Amino acid sequence: MQAVLLFTYSLCLAVASLAKDPRPCKSPPLLEGRLALAILKEKTFAVEKFAYNAFDERVHVRVLLDKDNKTIYRDLLMLYREGIAFEIFRHNQTCTKVPFKDPWKPMEIPKDAKFLSQMIIGSFSPSAEGLLINNWSGEVAKPPLKYLISFTEFGCLPVHAWYDTPDQTLLSVSFFDIVIGVEDPNIFIPPSFCDKVELSSEREMTNFFDALMR
Amino acid sequence: MQAVLLFTYSLCLAVASLAKDPRPCKSPPLLEGRLALAILKEKTFAVEKFAYNAFDERVHVRVLLDKDNKTIYRDLLMLYREGIAFEIFRHNQTCTKVPFKDPWKPMEIPKDAKFLSQMIIGSFSPSAEGLLINNWSGEVAKPPLKYLISFTEFGCLPVHAWYDTPDQTLLSVSFFDIVIGVEDPNIFIPPSFCDKVELSSEREMTNFFDALMR
Repeated sequence: MQAVLLFTYSLCLAVASLAKDPRPCKSPPLLEGRLALAILKEKTFAVEKFAYNAFDERVHVRVLLDKDNKTIYRDLLMLYREGIAFEIFRHNQTCTKVPFKDPWKPMEIPKDAKFLSQMIIGSFSPSAEGLLINNWSGEVAKPPLKYLISFTEFGCLPVHAWYDTPDQTLLSVSFFDIVIGVEDPNIFIPPSFCDKVELSSEREMTNFFDALMR
Repeated sequence: MQAVLLFTYSLCLAVASLAKDPRPCKSPPLLEGRLALAILKEKTFAVEKFAYNAFDERVHVRVLLDKDNKTIYRDLLMLYREGIAFEIFRHNQTCTKVPFKDPWKPMEIPKDAKFLSQMIIGSFSPSAEGLLINNWSGEVAKPPLKYLISFTEFGCLPVHAWYDTPDQTLLSVSFFDIVIGVEDPNIFIPPSFCDKVELSSEREMTNFFDALMR
């Protein structure tokens, strides 16, 4: 009798947990990958390599720019905790250092985000492959943004984000080729040729997208 | 000796096949799934359920419209081979039948598409999940469109498409929840209440997107 009761209780618990919406989650603290950015109003597109360090609140982005028939690599290193960003031009070993007063935003589903739906990219039919993702929406106060974000169900990795700013700029960010961990932790430390550069009093970067797309 | 030669030869073949670009592929002939459409200029968004039948060259789409505080389901049945499209309103059992002169476009990577890159959505790192996709670009002559399409490497299923029309309308189509096969083949046959409807002489639909978004 006790066994039957225990079994029934376990079954009820299992059904209850299946019926629950997915919970907000946080990505692993060290990640590398690529982002495809599209600002749709301006028809601006870019693919960029990023490294993310939630322990030290630092993000490194390698920006690839095709301009005037030249390809220029610009590295961006954002030190959120210190409120400083570096633009690093490795090809001629120069550096700029600017104020960067963006609050740290971990890669996560915010706790107040609204769960929208679960989807499979591709298929779980045999002979095919699929990826289970969850869609969430919400608003950020600073900078004021509405978002629609998709993260994988297993591993809590970002897949896609739509950001809608008050000036109607629709921004699409796709995440690819994510690796958990960071190959070279030195990527989060400004190179020695940046040591003596003074903090700019004329320029600043207000947030991540501003830094990336300028 | 012969065995060593055979092994070496097999290894060379394997390496050669690994080094090759992915080949254009064709999706399975019967599919069901969902599409998320976004016309970015107009900020129009829609999620629609589709069924695809390449044997008979027919596509069925269930369009969900929120209009004037009412939710209306409109079914669209496109018979490419016959050059006819039906708009079916099941809630009041009415039907319209219009000319539809769009050439059949199978769900595939066209043979003249240019391979761009291979990507992982998510991650293949342990404790996470990922999906391998291939990106292709190209142009369609009629209607004149530039496209950027992503299909899964395994199973050749559509993941995402960007279409750029000559009038600068950027269209994003995302595919989800794909099932190989079709649950109810009757979905490709006009319902009996459409039998006596005459072909409209005033209206027509020129292509898939025109039919979907009007």
